[in-house]
Amino acid sequence: MNFERHFADALDRLKAEGDYRIFADLERHRGAFPRATDHGTGRDVTVWCSNDYLGMGQHPAVLAAMHDAIDRVGAGAGGTRNISGTTHAHVALEAELADLHGKEAALLFTSGYVSNWAALGTLAARIPGCVVLSDAKNHASMIEGIRHSRAQKVIWAHNDLADLEAKLAALPADAPKLIAFESVYSMDGDIAPIEGICDLAERYGALTYLDEVHAVGLYGPRGGGVAEARGLMNRIDVIEGTLGKAFGVMGGYIAASAALCDFVRSFASGFIFTTALPPAVAAGACASVRHLKTSGAERAAHKARVAEVRARLDAAGIPHVPNPSHIIPVMVGDTVKCRYISDVLMREYGIYIQPINYPTVPKGTERLRITPSPVHAPGDVDRLVGALSELWTQCQLARRPMAAQ
Amino acid sequence: MNFERHFADALDRLKAEGDYRIFADLERHRGAFPRATDHGTGRDVTVWCSNDYLGMGQHPAVLAAMHDAIDRVGAGAGGTRNISGTTHAHVALEAELADLHGKEAALLFTSGYVSNWAALGTLAARIPGCVVLSDAKNHASMIEGIRHSRAQKVIWAHNDLADLEAKLAALPADAPKLIAFESVYSMDGDIAPIEGICDLAERYGALTYLDEVHAVGLYGPRGGGVAEARGLMNRIDVIEGTLGKAFGVMGGYIAASAALCDFVRSFASGFIFTTALPPAVAAGACASVRHLKTSGAERAAHKARVAEVRARLDAAGIPHVPNPSHIIPVMVGDTVKCRYISDVLMREYGIYIQPINYPTVPKGTERLRITPSPVHAPGDVDRLVGALSELWTQCQLARRPMAAQ
Repeated sequence: MNFERHFADALDRLKAEGDYRIFADLERHRGAFPRATDHGTGRDVTVWCSNDYLGMGQHPAVLAAMHDAIDRVGAGAGGTRNISGTTHAHVALEAELADLHGKEAALLFTSGYVSNWAALGTLAARIPGCVVLSDAKNHASMIEGIRHSRAQKVIWAHNDLADLEAKLAALPADAPKLIAFESVYSMDGDIAPIEGICDLAERYGALTYLDEVHAVGLYGPRGGGVAEARGLMNRIDVIEGTLGKAFGVMGGYIAASAALCDFVRSFASGFIFTTALPPAVAAGACASVRHLKTSGAERAAHKARVAEVRARLDAAGIPHVPNPSHIIPVMVGDTVKCRYISDVLMREYGIYIQPINYPTVPKGTERLRITPSPVHAPGDVDRLVGALSELWTQCQLARRPMAAQ
Repeated sequence: MNFERHFADALDRLKAEGDYRIFADLERHRGAFPRATDHGTGRDVTVWCSNDYLGMGQHPAVLAAMHDAIDRVGAGAGGTRNISGTTHAHVALEAELADLHGKEAALLFTSGYVSNWAALGTLAARIPGCVVLSDAKNHASMIEGIRHSRAQKVIWAHNDLADLEAKLAALPADAPKLIAFESVYSMDGDIAPIEGICDLAERYGALTYLDEVHAVGLYGPRGGGVAEARGLMNRIDVIEGTLGKAFGVMGGYIAASAALCDFVRSFASGFIFTTALPPAVAAGACASVRHLKTSGAERAAHKARVAEVRARLDAAGIPHVPNPSHIIPVMVGDTVKCRYISDVLMREYGIYIQPINYPTVPKGTERLRITPSPVHAPGDVDRLVGALSELWTQCQLARRPMAAQ
């Protein structure tokens, strides 16, 4: 077999379909983010598609904690959590996260992806006969974790309580069940009916596993996520979150009962056999979580900026999917046009919004996913909406309110 | 089902078998590593089981690069590699790694575990009909990647060329084949017959995938690993490495042809759907790789320290497995005694060596895995060998040269 030819052919097919990804080579400007230098064009750009939703990646408390940890303990952890890699920064962060979600314990992973993959993979595999009820739009990391477990999987229609109930009712009453879902769905920005799901879980004796990666730091009086905002944290068995989005650093975690966390800690390959996060990463994340527990200013400013961008897009007739979250999907629905608009925004307007294409979203729903943050200034909003408006005309895209969809 | 009871029962079984893991809560002392504070006992200890093999986790060039990156660009990457998360630090590090291994390209992952899981999982799944020939002692991350791919897997006896050839010969000549193996095996410290494997791969038209995580930085004139030391890098298709052991920071990678890296970049779920490494982590790792390309001093001191510890153990009759690498497995072969010795070393001697037990090693081969480094002083070696000698007497463990095994 000619392996090189096989790889090249597959890449050519991606290119022909417009799905080949080109990464923007960015250099953020600390203290001036969302400004960054694009090394591709050599010009400064404003980033409008970051998941550093609150700008915590440049918060002085976060950076000071990282500097301090590097000065005190050095760079890496030097081992797995079991073999010399647990540092006091990890222990402190796990305590902080357990407190954030009102749980007995928390368990850190190297990323949100790994936390979903390892925790779901372990729970579903090691609860004998477990059936996983998975929302149809769950993230790749959850899908891979469930697949890894080789447990029986039942997919229920996205955010559809009636379908979830039908699927639960169709299963044997004594089969252990685990309902896996997200609060804020990343690409559409819609939010799950968490309370209804908890009611069903209770009725059918199912464990609840909630991915809050696009919500922690952003929702709830202490940044505990949508479940905190709705007073439902105590009804969720496992809350999974990330330290790499609103908290601005890196890493993933679950918060749950002490026994559940200890169980995953003791059996999850993806937790056991990997080098721990650098202490400076854990310390920076810890400072971020602590800050957002008591400060609501970032959340308030974030909410206001999101509302402002939506209103300005509406005024210009730029279609975007209405949803109750902070994510603004501007639908283009065409791979080539989506990439073209993104290219022109970058090259001519100094605005960076990565086109979102397959496999991240289904074909035909290509979009610009806009994530306003408190660090975007009013002038940034003017330039964004002005540029999109000009491109909408140029590309002959329809202007309409999307609420009618 | 009573889930809490299920978790508690499983943990109780682990405890009864002596396999329950208790993590040491450490705080390293930057500039004085291997010294660290153990928050469990409250006392200062000397770490003898770190994978920060060269002490690069406290190297001034590494720490300066991390500080500088935090000051310039902030904490986290803020997105996946595709959606705003590629920073110039990632691009520079990938170029540095490609150069280190003499390959066209390199691809970064959030960890070595993820790099094996995602790269092997993608290659084996997306080369139609691929059969993976996997060394019997491959790391969990490789096993999970192969399992994930659902490709046919053939396990060959550890480091056994005759068995590998028999397995290759038994497969259809036109089946695409991938041979997956490691250079230095972490727990026994033995090294693969890389040249013989390359010869067989050539004869049978197989791709070669070599995990060098316990070798990069440590072997070869520029720290390219055992394949570099033996002049074989050009015969290996995929070299996988970590930035979290000898390089002292965090992250994993593959180095390979441009088409192969681009293929994995374009299709690997574990690469696509996860937040990129913080720029400061990439910058620190890059500084470490660069330093070890030109400085051989750390490697020379490391080699000398390993030889010294081995000679001192031999003089005291403490059994250790002979091997050609830097890893010194002192065999205890009993879960309870292994943990007891480790506990007493920590509590009474201020020496930290985590007991290695199941599932990291097979039951009955429990061991103390000692990793000398250039930052251990002669006095540290005296104290280590003295303490082990006392405990060997106290536990009535046999003193013998292990070469006879």
